[in-house]
This record gives sequence, structure tokens and C-alpha cells, in this order.
Amino acid sequence: MGTKGKIIKCKAAIAWEANKPLSIEEVEVAPPKDHEVRIQLTWLIFFLRITTIIATALCHSDAHILHPQFEGGFFPVILGHEGAGIVESVGPGVTNFKPGDKVIPLGVPQCGKCKFCLSPRTNLCGKLKNFKNPLSDQKLMEDGTSRFTCKGKPIYHFMGTSTFSQYTVVSDVNLAKLEDDANLERVCLLGCGFSTGYGAVINNAKVTPGSTCAIFGLGGVGLSAVMGCKASGASRIIAIDINSEKFTKAKALGATDCLNPKDLDKPIQEVIVEMTNGGVDFAFECAGGAKIMRAALDSVTVGWGVCTIIAVNVNDSGLNVSAMELLMGRTLTGTSFGGWKSVTSVPKLAADYKNKKLDLDALVSHTLPFDKVNEAFDLMYQGKSIRTVLLF
Amino acid sequence: MGTKGKIIKCKAAIAWEANKPLSIEEVEVAPPKDHEVRIQLTWLIFFLRITTIIATALCHSDAHILHPQFEGGFFPVILGHEGAGIVESVGPGVTNFKPGDKVIPLGVPQCGKCKFCLSPRTNLCGKLKNFKNPLSDQKLMEDGTSRFTCKGKPIYHFMGTSTFSQYTVVSDVNLAKLEDDANLERVCLLGCGFSTGYGAVINNAKVTPGSTCAIFGLGGVGLSAVMGCKASGASRIIAIDINSEKFTKAKALGATDCLNPKDLDKPIQEVIVEMTNGGVDFAFECAGGAKIMRAALDSVTVGWGVCTIIAVNVNDSGLNVSAMELLMGRTLTGTSFGGWKSVTSVPKLAADYKNKKLDLDALVSHTLPFDKVNEAFDLMYQGKSIRTVLLF
Repeated sequence: MGTKGKIIKCKAAIAWEANKPLSIEEVEVAPPKDHEVRIQLTWLIFFLRITTIIATALCHSDAHILHPQFEGGFFPVILGHEGAGIVESVGPGVTNFKPGDKVIPLGVPQCGKCKFCLSPRTNLCGKLKNFKNPLSDQKLMEDGTSRFTCKGKPIYHFMGTSTFSQYTVVSDVNLAKLEDDANLERVCLLGCGFSTGYGAVINNAKVTPGSTCAIFGLGGVGLSAVMGCKASGASRIIAIDINSEKFTKAKALGATDCLNPKDLDKPIQEVIVEMTNGGVDFAFECAGGAKIMRAALDSVTVGWGVCTIIAVNVNDSGLNVSAMELLMGRTLTGTSFGGWKSVTSVPKLAADYKNKKLDLDALVSHTLPFDKVNEAFDLMYQGKSIRTVLLF
Repeated sequence: MGTKGKIIKCKAAIAWEANKPLSIEEVEVAPPKDHEVRIQLTWLIFFLRITTIIATALCHSDAHILHPQFEGGFFPVILGHEGAGIVESVGPGVTNFKPGDKVIPLGVPQCGKCKFCLSPRTNLCGKLKNFKNPLSDQKLMEDGTSRFTCKGKPIYHFMGTSTFSQYTVVSDVNLAKLEDDANLERVCLLGCGFSTGYGAVINNAKVTPGSTCAIFGLGGVGLSAVMGCKASGASRIIAIDINSEKFTKAKALGATDCLNPKDLDKPIQEVIVEMTNGGVDFAFECAGGAKIMRAALDSVTVGWGVCTIIAVNVNDSGLNVSAMELLMGRTLTGTSFGGWKSVTSVPKLAADYKNKKLDLDALVSHTLPFDKVNEAFDLMYQGKSIRTVLLF
């Protein structure tokens, strides 16, 4: 390869500071070091999340870090964490990938060796260091340096992925290998949104056939949760959003009831409890914020109701839980990346998409050229997009 | 029987108002009505809980309702919910009990017919009406009346049990039948404390062999949780109390480490996280209060840590939980009466005690005549007792 071992100059979107538009710049991308892989993302498709209903797994929000309220922000940085690309070159020690492989960068690594990876009970990985603020983790490669420079300055990575660049460098434990015929324009959704919502239902809550479910927030994560509930055989899937335009798609994907809290004359949780004779078996909080966490927890039945938190607000003020509501048999839990062991699971999900077992197409609402990345953010902020695809 | 169908006059401890000692009075106990059973508690042993570390299942605290901060108090009332006795007579429709049967009154009923009883996922019962304040539930019999009068006034029942009386009347779905050779002086502990702590470990958290556990509060419930962890094969059982005198018994029952937060120069949760390289697999909150709930949740590992709340403070100010700590794979849940289906499980636990599979003897710290009920409360308030036995 003509570029192997050399610095590559390419286009990337840089966030120089909080609360400002991204800036398309020429950056230098250094060659991969030990156990690193450089990926060509020329074909890359980036998905941004809606914000009216913020719905994400590990709060993997490209927008969060731009928010002035975000604690532990770091700049300049190349954001982006939902993408797919092709291996350009590999560093020493990389055995699982070769140039030309189709791949998906992963915000949650899977080293395969740590106590977390060796346990079937979690998809976290000991390569993560900051469990309290995972968005501020993996901002440098494992040797403590960056592979990006721009205008002579080192640029931070983001979540170990930094997919808002034509080329990026990731650790080989942050990368899933795809089959050669994988449709990158769709399976890139497996990098965060789809996997997170669908997996929360399948892997974490383990929704049972015939059960009743409520999904708060119908962005990419929430709609994926709807699909998970449908696939699990739930008998009732109550989909909630403050934008009723989402309901057509939610119903097409399996929702049996759609509720807009703005149209109701009493709190959403009271309506759900009445509709279900005491509350749903499973609630999924895919929107973010203390108020919606409260509504989701209030919506589950005493006895066995499980409320799964999937979303985080920039201002995560938390939920005040009384001992008594827990003693009555409710469970409050959460998930990042839908509980999937990332490196080993994402290829299987990609195969399921190819075999038409999963519908990723339904989640793409917009497509734009990469240069319009800020326009995509605006669509997200305005709640107009489910997922916007950015094409280089 | 000479008393069947007649009003019985007997001795009972009455709480006339909040924050006042109980008063031993002569009360009238009416005969049982439909599906009710009158029980002779002459042999009854009452267990009170310690309060330095309040540890109870459904907040089945006889003391709570006496507290001026308790919301929804009702007076006059006959308290008591851990006892055992002998059936004196049965009302119409009662088929499972006959005079002379040894029995344990149950604060959590099991009707066997409702959606909760028909589900293996919970031990709650639809006969309970007030899941938000279960201590204020079952204060009258199902027909809306009381079977107790004193000085011409009707007296409230408590938790459907009211065992602070030589005779009481309970619903037949609030009663467990024992074998004829059951040792009432010990198996009465199955009415609340032991079952709650032991069951939380076995039935709710489902502690696995080799796992690490932390138990906050070493009253009757906490020590029973220690026994549950030991029986489950936990490799490390960290027992925590602010009274180091509890540690000898805790170690005898299976604790591998004992910690007194007062002796530490940093927060208990930090010490536990360091001791266990990241946190325990299971924490059990058997003490009550927001501060201890927080310590317990902080003590569990990311990835799969389960924090089970068993205790409630009178002033349940709740725990503020951030979305992010849940997203990192922690689970917060709770249990009442240790998840046991009461009517069907308590007889099995009694058999396990007879067969020396369970140690109930270890939990009895004091024995007093019933007339000294207020002294027993004082022992509890002073944190000097684990369980005080009151003998009529």
C-alpha cells in the first residue's frame, strides 16, 4: 500500500471548542502503532442522534461533549462514533485484521482477557478506565498519545473511534470485522444506536413473550428497542414520544400503542398504569433526564417490573428512588451498548441484517454530504432526524 | 372448644398514640368471620428488631408506626408481626386450618389466585392494596372491620397479624401451617426477620458460588443475609456495622471480613472497592436510610453489581441514582419478605430449621416476659438486641 507507514493527510471535522460548530480541516493521521489499526472512512456514513429525545447507550453522544455543561470536556477533538470503513493498514501485533477488511469501530472495546470480558454477565471491558465519565475515556491511544494533528496541534480522539475523519486509528480491541459483502451504509448503525436499543431489550431486560413494554423516546435507540420488544414477542408495546410524527414508524416497527405526553391531561405514567392494570413488565428509558427516568420507573408494575435506563442527559441530575418502591419488587438497571460483547457480537448482528432478520433501513431519516456535518447537528438539535447519514 | 364463636377477653399491648410506650390492656377479640382464623398466642414469642441498624423486609417495623415522622399512622393499634401460635377456632370457609394447628401469621399474604400469586416472579399478593405504604395496609380485616375492641373502642390491626396479643384474628391467606412438632419458640423468626434477610440473598439476588458480598447492618435481617451468602457459597462475605460487638456472631455465621465505618478514615464504600478490586458482586442494604443505600450501591462493581435494598428508614428520603452509574451495568432492586411466597414457603423453612439446615437460634439475643414489651423496645432503640423474645 502506498500509504502504509506514512502519515496520511485527509479531511476531518474538528471540534475546537465547546458550543461551536465543527470545522472541516485537513488533518494528519499517523500510522498505527502496536495493536492499532488505521481505517479508511472515505465511504463512511456517520449517524447522528436526534436530540428532542436523546437516546444513546453509553451516552455516546457526539453532541454531549460540545455542550458547555458537559463535565470533563477536552478540545480540540475529532468526534464521531457510529461508522464503518475499510482497514488501510495495521500496526505491529495486529493479527485479526488486514488491509481491505471491512470493519466497524467500537466505542466499547472487548479485549477478551480482562475480568469483564471473561464474564458472561457484562459487555464492559477493563480497557475502559473511567467508568464514571466514559465519554471522557479513550481520548488518547493506549500509549497516551494521539494519532491526529492539525495545524501543528495534537487532536484528541473520542471514545476510541473518532469517525468524523476520512481516516482514523483505533485499537484492535475496538474493532469488529465484517464479511466482505457487508453493506457499510447500513451496518454502521450497529456501531451504536441500533445495537444499544435492541440489545437492551434482548440482552439486558430479556423481555419475555406476552409481556407488556413501554419505550420512552423514539429516536434511533428507542425505535430499535421497539424492534427488540417485537422480536421478543411482547404482547403490548407502548411507544412514547413528544413528537407524534414518530408514531407512524413506531407502529410499522411493532408498537401497539403510541402516546404523546403533550396530548394527555395527566402524567404519562398514570396513563400507562391505568392502560395496563398496574404497570408494564418492562420500561425502557431512551430519552434521558430525571423526569423521564421517573416516568419510566413509575410505569413498571410492582412485583417484577424492570426499568432499564439507556439514555443520559448532558445534565444527569439523577433519579431519587425510595427504598419502598424497590422493596415492592421493582428493579432499576441500565445498559451500555445493549449488553453486546462488541467485537464478537457486531459481526453476528451484521449477518442478521444481511439475512433480513434486522431492519436497519428504517432508522435512516436523512442523508447529507460530510461537509454538511453542522447541518446534521442542527437537524438533530431540532428533533427532525432519527439518524442522519453523512457521506464523505 | 369452650371459646369457639365467643368473644375472648385477653391481654394485649396497645399503642394508643405515636411516640408513647405501649400499654398492656384487656382487649376483646371477636370470633373469626369468613376465611378468618383466630389464633391463641399464649405461647407466642415476639421478636423485636434492633434499631441502631434498622433491618427489615417490608419495613415491617413495629417501631416505625410509633414514630411521629411516620406518614399514615393509625391509632389505637395492636402491633406485632413476628410470632407463632396455635389455631383456636376458624371461621366459615376455612379449609386449610383446624383448631390446634401450629401456625405463623404472615404480613405478606398469599391468596394463590391473583396475578402476583400466579407468577413465579414475585411474592407480593393482590390482597395487598397499598403498595406505596404497606405498613398502613391490612389495618382492618377484609370486610373493613376490626376484630379487636378495648374500653369500648375498636382497635386497628397491624399488617394483618397483630401478634402483640394473646389472641389475634388473621385471614387464612395470611397464615402458614406448621408441622405438629415445630418449635414455636424459634420458627416464629420465620415470620419476618430471618426469611427476609436469607431470602433476599437466595431468592432475589441469587448469590452465586464464589462471589463477593457486602452486608450493611448486622441486625436479625443482616445476620440472616450473612447466613444466606454462606449457604450460597460466596467466597467473601463482608459484614458492616457501626457496633463492633456484632462481629463475633457475624463471623460465626460466615462473615469473612467485618468492618466498622466508625473505625475507618475513609468512606466505607471506598474501602470495600479497594478490598475487592473494584467492588463486590452483591450488596445488601439491611440498615435503612439514604446514606447507607448510597454506600451499598457504591460498593458494587460496574458490569454486574447488584445492590438489593431490604431496609427502610422511617424517614425514607430516597437515593439519588445517576443514569451513568446504571449504564455501567449496576442493578438496584429490593425485596419484601425475602421473595418467599409466604404461605407455601414458610412451612418448608420451618422444616429446614428442624433438619438443622438453618440456624435460627443464633438470632435470639434476649428473652423477656411480655409485660416488659416496652423494655424490649428500649433494648431495640439502644441497639443492644438482635432479636428480643417476649414470652406471655
